[in-house]
Amino acid sequence: MHNSISHSTVNVARHSQCSLNLAGAALASFMLLASSTAAAWDGLVEKQVFEMEEYTTVSGETIAPVRIGWEAYGELNEEKDNVILITHFFSGTSHAAGRYDEDDTAPGYWDAIIGPGKPLDTDEYYIIASDTLVNLNAHDPNVTTTGPATTNPETGEPWGTDFPLVNIRDFVEVQKALLESQGIERLHAVMGASMGALQAYEWASAYPERVERLIPVIGGGATDPWLLATLSAWAAPIRLDANWNEGDYYTGEPPLDGLRESLKLVTLNANHWQWANATFDRSWANNDANPARELDARYAIEQTLDDIAEARAEVADANHFLYLVKANQAFVTGHGDSLKEGLARIDAPSLILYSENDLVFAPQGIRETAETIEADGTEAELVTLEGNRGHLNGVLAIDQAGDRIRTFLAE
Amino acid sequence: MHNSISHSTVNVARHSQCSLNLAGAALASFMLLASSTAAAWDGLVEKQVFEMEEYTTVSGETIAPVRIGWEAYGELNEEKDNVILITHFFSGTSHAAGRYDEDDTAPGYWDAIIGPGKPLDTDEYYIIASDTLVNLNAHDPNVTTTGPATTNPETGEPWGTDFPLVNIRDFVEVQKALLESQGIERLHAVMGASMGALQAYEWASAYPERVERLIPVIGGGATDPWLLATLSAWAAPIRLDANWNEGDYYTGEPPLDGLRESLKLVTLNANHWQWANATFDRSWANNDANPARELDARYAIEQTLDDIAEARAEVADANHFLYLVKANQAFVTGHGDSLKEGLARIDAPSLILYSENDLVFAPQGIRETAETIEADGTEAELVTLEGNRGHLNGVLAIDQAGDRIRTFLAE
Repeated sequence: MHNSISHSTVNVARHSQCSLNLAGAALASFMLLASSTAAAWDGLVEKQVFEMEEYTTVSGETIAPVRIGWEAYGELNEEKDNVILITHFFSGTSHAAGRYDEDDTAPGYWDAIIGPGKPLDTDEYYIIASDTLVNLNAHDPNVTTTGPATTNPETGEPWGTDFPLVNIRDFVEVQKALLESQGIERLHAVMGASMGALQAYEWASAYPERVERLIPVIGGGATDPWLLATLSAWAAPIRLDANWNEGDYYTGEPPLDGLRESLKLVTLNANHWQWANATFDRSWANNDANPARELDARYAIEQTLDDIAEARAEVADANHFLYLVKANQAFVTGHGDSLKEGLARIDAPSLILYSENDLVFAPQGIRETAETIEADGTEAELVTLEGNRGHLNGVLAIDQAGDRIRTFLAE
Repeated sequence: MHNSISHSTVNVARHSQCSLNLAGAALASFMLLASSTAAAWDGLVEKQVFEMEEYTTVSGETIAPVRIGWEAYGELNEEKDNVILITHFFSGTSHAAGRYDEDDTAPGYWDAIIGPGKPLDTDEYYIIASDTLVNLNAHDPNVTTTGPATTNPETGEPWGTDFPLVNIRDFVEVQKALLESQGIERLHAVMGASMGALQAYEWASAYPERVERLIPVIGGGATDPWLLATLSAWAAPIRLDANWNEGDYYTGEPPLDGLRESLKLVTLNANHWQWANATFDRSWANNDANPARELDARYAIEQTLDDIAEARAEVADANHFLYLVKANQAFVTGHGDSLKEGLARIDAPSLILYSENDLVFAPQGIRETAETIEADGTEAELVTLEGNRGHLNGVLAIDQAGDRIRTFLAE
């Protein structure tokens, strides 16, 4: 009975990849099947909040309090040894799977692989995801984070750039406190995409005794010079917006024009020309405004990227964006002098997923990361994700690796 | 004798690729050898200016006067049938080869292939290059161009955004007038990189009876959606700079912060992660300012890109940048409804050079351009340029194709 349910739900997941029109029907059939086992997670998610009275950063500065949002799929078992931690990407949140209510049109970003009978099987695992510190989407009602946009209780004003710079290790430390608050001392696995991969490496390096399996997706063991420069370019539009005002804008107009352009650049860089040229043509945004004849007229692809950026900017905070840039730039596994030593501390068998056409995390660096982990005998397996989305293949094409992830988690 | 000179100068070009320290010695030996044939071009260039009393754009608007700079290498023969036109890239100028004086540290960008005995042999050909309209480097003393930064004689003020939008065909029309002023009716070849490739395609499509050979480098027959979006991202920093002021800044502070960030993005996109990661490490720009601990501290790669951008911004004009973005976005060979028809009008045998790791002009579009030219029996040959510079391989690694260019010009 269990096997047949698993099989059906995997098929449902595949259908929902093929056609958005099928998604409603697929979801209905999914829920019907899921209801036939008492333990199955129903696909509905409740966002929860974890609070620390204070947190001292790796650099020695104190933030009080720290609050972050989290959500979980599946049940924590009595032994508390069935935990998979999901760490999110730069523009992501803790919403990795499921829906907030039955009318919710978009599920969490890795819903294709998280759920009853799916590779990250909620019938078996307790899967938990948390918002990071300085999460980009500070104004999303489903996100709880602490960063420059948060009110500092000592002053009654938003922290602004008085908020200490934080790094990937700080994200890990807050997650560790969250897990400990639930009595969780060990992770069956930690898995994350892009900035989530950085957190995963850091978890496995900082706490090798707590991490049993490592699944970094589209991320390498350190931020390479190309990505240092790319992140620098992402930050520039915000800094150019006069409303940014060196980060002091919480009593005035936020730097939305700059934030939108920064987000637009993220969308473009995280994709690939294969996607752009397969998805768009040279159509104009407005049939009455020829972009070749008017300085302000745009092409359809510009309009689409601008529209995506505008929607994202509505819930994002510009200073949080800049703090995330800093955290990502600073990343070297182990946060020590040597990437080699940082990776050598990893003992967990590693399944590293990446995309050969990734323009954010160069595939060469990811392959070298695998080689360095393997150098002392730790298993590290590389699996490529195909697709025309570049870096985003790690989010949008993750189901390709579903079978391998399933067996890796069972090994 | 001629052969031995050719051979020596080719070797000189190779040496100058290997080491900057050798460049001076190589130049000296080059000049010594060159002086042994009376006809050989001496490698010194004089910038000249061509003026049209007025020019009416393809869109029907009049600019009066139009002035553009040009330079030439080699001698125009009596039959005026030994002409090779070089068209320049987005951030380029007419300075394709040679030096302005003997102390000039940097020769023109394609000096590796243009000169006595080189593939574009100045002992045989008259090689001419001109600045385009709205050339980016409006404030470079060696550039003459007409665009928004030019004083409009009717008002006595810079044109600003009253300057009409121009396109690649307009660049070609002004070049055609320049050539006709020298009695030149036919081109042995037209060759250009990137935006220069677009001008080359347009020349061959608009005036098939005047173009005998076509050598487009790192450019396709049309600007694809990926490049539309990339160009849009390049324009954004200028538009975000409050000093841009909708293009009206000639009586105040120019938008240099925005212009620098736009130029930085051009440098980054025109390269490749292979170059960034082979050339830089994670060093800080300043040993006393840890970028992980200070919001404004930078890494060395950021500093280098910023320094390059700053130097370029000193002679560039922000409105010219935006006009070039528009001209490049608008490009479809033939400027008609159909790329296929535009390319079908090309009769010239085509040698198309490109780079597989080009992140500006997608190789797929370049290959499709070659196929479309070939569809009616016109010869089109594709040659790849290797290297870790991405798009810039077309400028910096051009000597790889030197032998093929030499034979193509002789066929």
